[in-house]
Amino acid sequence: MGNPLTPDVLVDPVVLTRALVDVESVSRDEKVLADCVEDVLRKAAHLTVRRVGNTVMARTRLDRGQRVILAGHLDTVPVNGNLPSTVVDDLIYGCGTSDMKGGVALALHLAVTLPDPRYDLTYLFYEAEEIESEHNGLNLVAEAHPKWLKADFAVLLEPTYGAVEAGCQGTVGARVHTRGRRAHTARAWRGVNAIHAAGEVLRRLEDYRPRTVTIDGCTYREGLNAVRIRGGMAGNVVPDECSVEVNLRFAPDRSEKQAHEHLREVFDGYELEITDSAPGALPGLDAAPAREFLAAVGIEPAAKLGWTDVARFAALGIPALNYGPGDPALAHAPDEHVEIGKIRDGVATLYRWLAP
Amino acid sequence: MGNPLTPDVLVDPVVLTRALVDVESVSRDEKVLADCVEDVLRKAAHLTVRRVGNTVMARTRLDRGQRVILAGHLDTVPVNGNLPSTVVDDLIYGCGTSDMKGGVALALHLAVTLPDPRYDLTYLFYEAEEIESEHNGLNLVAEAHPKWLKADFAVLLEPTYGAVEAGCQGTVGARVHTRGRRAHTARAWRGVNAIHAAGEVLRRLEDYRPRTVTIDGCTYREGLNAVRIRGGMAGNVVPDECSVEVNLRFAPDRSEKQAHEHLREVFDGYELEITDSAPGALPGLDAAPAREFLAAVGIEPAAKLGWTDVARFAALGIPALNYGPGDPALAHAPDEHVEIGKIRDGVATLYRWLAP
Repeated sequence: MGNPLTPDVLVDPVVLTRALVDVESVSRDEKVLADCVEDVLRKAAHLTVRRVGNTVMARTRLDRGQRVILAGHLDTVPVNGNLPSTVVDDLIYGCGTSDMKGGVALALHLAVTLPDPRYDLTYLFYEAEEIESEHNGLNLVAEAHPKWLKADFAVLLEPTYGAVEAGCQGTVGARVHTRGRRAHTARAWRGVNAIHAAGEVLRRLEDYRPRTVTIDGCTYREGLNAVRIRGGMAGNVVPDECSVEVNLRFAPDRSEKQAHEHLREVFDGYELEITDSAPGALPGLDAAPAREFLAAVGIEPAAKLGWTDVARFAALGIPALNYGPGDPALAHAPDEHVEIGKIRDGVATLYRWLAP
Repeated sequence: MGNPLTPDVLVDPVVLTRALVDVESVSRDEKVLADCVEDVLRKAAHLTVRRVGNTVMARTRLDRGQRVILAGHLDTVPVNGNLPSTVVDDLIYGCGTSDMKGGVALALHLAVTLPDPRYDLTYLFYEAEEIESEHNGLNLVAEAHPKWLKADFAVLLEPTYGAVEAGCQGTVGARVHTRGRRAHTARAWRGVNAIHAAGEVLRRLEDYRPRTVTIDGCTYREGLNAVRIRGGMAGNVVPDECSVEVNLRFAPDRSEKQAHEHLREVFDGYELEITDSAPGALPGLDAAPAREFLAAVGIEPAAKLGWTDVARFAALGIPALNYGPGDPALAHAPDEHVEIGKIRDGVATLYRWLAP
């Protein structure tokens, strides 16, 4: 089978979006699509291409002084009866249209059609974003080839419906344990009820007033929620154990360590077990390429809600933001689709920003 | 194999206890033991014997004017490496020694050695007390042969360690549900947290002050406890459902219906689902045979904690109590045992009460 990403296809980001969608690439099964993308990039004389696993990197070497990364993941969630793609009016339907082959199409179109950008550009098409982070291509590159990620600014083409979402919240998962003493419920006074004791934990959660923090014009709303509660073993036993699993989403002005300390303060007096944790990312919109990008888009940035790979760039000291044509609300949905107009707007914006 | 319950064995309730223990009779597997017991009873000329399933009934017909039931279940919980029986000093070890073949031995010894009791006597040796009540022999007799249960007073020879435990608590199991609205924890303000809402349910449980009620000199302590709590579905989702399973133990001055109403009052404003329920039993110690029994034992009665088949007699209008040689704390334990002294005390007490 020939490469469906022909020159005719590459020249139109809308046609290219459909072509990318129609090469199925569920996480851990990205090889065919990565081969097609690598093949296309190697034909572009102005690019240096490298590959690790199913992650492909291509970059210009124009000595522009500043370097910008455009990144997108090649994988999708499992197909849900939504392939091959279809077009209805202004909408392309299909698995990965929104998350995020529409965004990948913008980057790949630019890579082959813009040989002389204003900044040096690094394109990253990476694998396994939708699954456990140990497989994440961006993670693997950061470990194996950190030099590939040297840059002054990064745009992740994740779905934002044309908005600019900068930085992201951090997240901490933890368990708060309460203990008691087991007893038969017919002789309950001999026991201590660990579920009743969790009442105070829920009270603190109910009384918790989350902060709202504005950084570089982006507003981050924090939140602390019980996400699971488990306790008790039988219908006639006073339970001796209960655990409340909580999730803290925190603004990026707190470090991960400070977020842990904050949780310990909130649940002072209780046994607290941190189960997972990831730092937030500051929006970092001061750098020149970032300011010029915002001018090209022409709208105010907003805070990214939820955790994205933007935080991986932030951890490397690279200011990064999300900007893509897809609607994030449609990601992973069986009726996932992307608006053709948003793809055309996106490519026009990137050209406005990056063309010489 | 011959019947191990020979005349030599029957004449000594201690030897008889061991013989009964050594015929394994886990619930639903009581046939061999029921056959042995029926055979023994049929040989006693002063008794009329009936059988249904593995439940054996024997009674005197002496026109004494008042009739007393002595009842015990033949089944045990599963054997736990504790058969055959062993004797160490004053203790008989083995599955069912305490719960309740020591008590069954008292009744069976009386049945064959006391042809002329002061009251007419009905002996009930029944199956499947340790499992779901649909199999319970006493239940089956109450439905199929209610006349077998006609009596003025009943003693259930369940383990009480020689104490008199009268009446019993009722019990209600229920679930209290709280509802919310699901949302991603990164956008928690769009949701309503059902686990946080359960905080108020736990607060009411914590604030609950159970009654202590004294009836006929027996003190019943009520109790209301959370026995299970479940809520939440994922680490990043504001949960829309939580349920708190509660268990109410109530004094027998409340009817089952009143107990349900009480629960509805306590959890007013919440969705309450009653999942199981059983009435309590009043001690009913006014009848002449009961008063004389208490005089023969010579100690004050106490309230039975927990639910027993005493309540089945109470539901039929028959005052009933528990009195047996076993230690209830040892029931179902691998090191289950009964004190030989308690068996001898028990048979002496019953003779004092029932001999002419």
